[in-house]
Amino acid sequence: MFEGVVQELIDELGRLPGVGPKSAQRIAFYLLQSEDDQAKKLAQVLLEVKDRVKFCEICGNVTEDPTCSICRDARRNQTLICVVEESKDVQAIERTREFRGLYHVLGGAISPIDGVGPDQLRIKELMTRLSNPEIQEVIIATDPNLEGEATATYLTRMLSTLGVTVSRLASGLPVGGDLEYADEVTLGRAFAGRTRSN
Amino acid sequence: MFEGVVQELIDELGRLPGVGPKSAQRIAFYLLQSEDDQAKKLAQVLLEVKDRVKFCEICGNVTEDPTCSICRDARRNQTLICVVEESKDVQAIERTREFRGLYHVLGGAISPIDGVGPDQLRIKELMTRLSNPEIQEVIIATDPNLEGEATATYLTRMLSTLGVTVSRLASGLPVGGDLEYADEVTLGRAFAGRTRSN
Repeated sequence: MFEGVVQELIDELGRLPGVGPKSAQRIAFYLLQSEDDQAKKLAQVLLEVKDRVKFCEICGNVTEDPTCSICRDARRNQTLICVVEESKDVQAIERTREFRGLYHVLGGAISPIDGVGPDQLRIKELMTRLSNPEIQEVIIATDPNLEGEATATYLTRMLSTLGVTVSRLASGLPVGGDLEYADEVTLGRAFAGRTRSN
Repeated sequence: MFEGVVQELIDELGRLPGVGPKSAQRIAFYLLQSEDDQAKKLAQVLLEVKDRVKFCEICGNVTEDPTCSICRDARRNQTLICVVEESKDVQAIERTREFRGLYHVLGGAISPIDGVGPDQLRIKELMTRLSNPEIQEVIIATDPNLEGEATATYLTRMLSTLGVTVSRLASGLPVGGDLEYADEVTLGRAFAGRTRSN
């Protein structure tokens, strides 16, 4: 144990996800020995982020304005909504440049173990948005894991009553991957979802 | 890329050692979604640490006072000085409870590639401490890597003129390890440093 505030810093850093006690110590000493600016800059950004960052009133994406830049962009296809778990999923999809519609950020996935049920997610807000008859398709892009699949199944059932097309992202082999190393579930999905090429 | 201050936070976190772009994003969103207190607490500790933490005037260990608790402790053996690279090495040795002497923190190791020569380390301060005739032994406990070994060799040469005993930590097999998996250098050292057991 270190003395006083050094140990406090190590403890606070150690509470961050993916930062173990050894990494926390390493980061703390790095900051101690760095130029004065770096620790101060980080502290300042941490304080600002909580004050300035809000969640878009429409889609739930992070933004510094009442609505996010995607929801404000009239050139986006207003008939498509892609449902994702987190804001970082929006960024991942934006990087592909494949999708030009709107998003809806749930704020997580259904996970009874973590105490997250449908009521903790922004599902009610999604239903409200879908009362707009302009919307034709909802693409469910939750993570391909247990919680994501449960959430997708729940949403599909909820949305099937609304007369809107509901679709899911394709499962299959990752591009650049090696068939030999694919797990059996992925490989099974790749077979089930095979597309005709002639 | 995210908007504004969120991206700034991700960038600042990504500058920390061992934190890549993905981890930085994960930590940023964790902090965004956490209780208000956690990001504020971290910010506050970051600001405090730079103001309050000093380096012990005697040994160079981190402390919030002019001298550290080890240097102030009169019950420690004042005739032994253990030389280490960093403050975290002091903590590692303290945890063993094997050593009850004093420390001297160099602040790094000789590394020409990183532009660290003997003048950048607290070697002059060590020589000053050794003018005290009470000190009988200097134990060099630098890291067992290239830079640490170079530093140890340099120090051994410097100290050999002073009539003080200079020793090095033993090299050998790690306890709990498997002989079969030891690298050849370590195994070679373990042979060279074998101790008689009858």
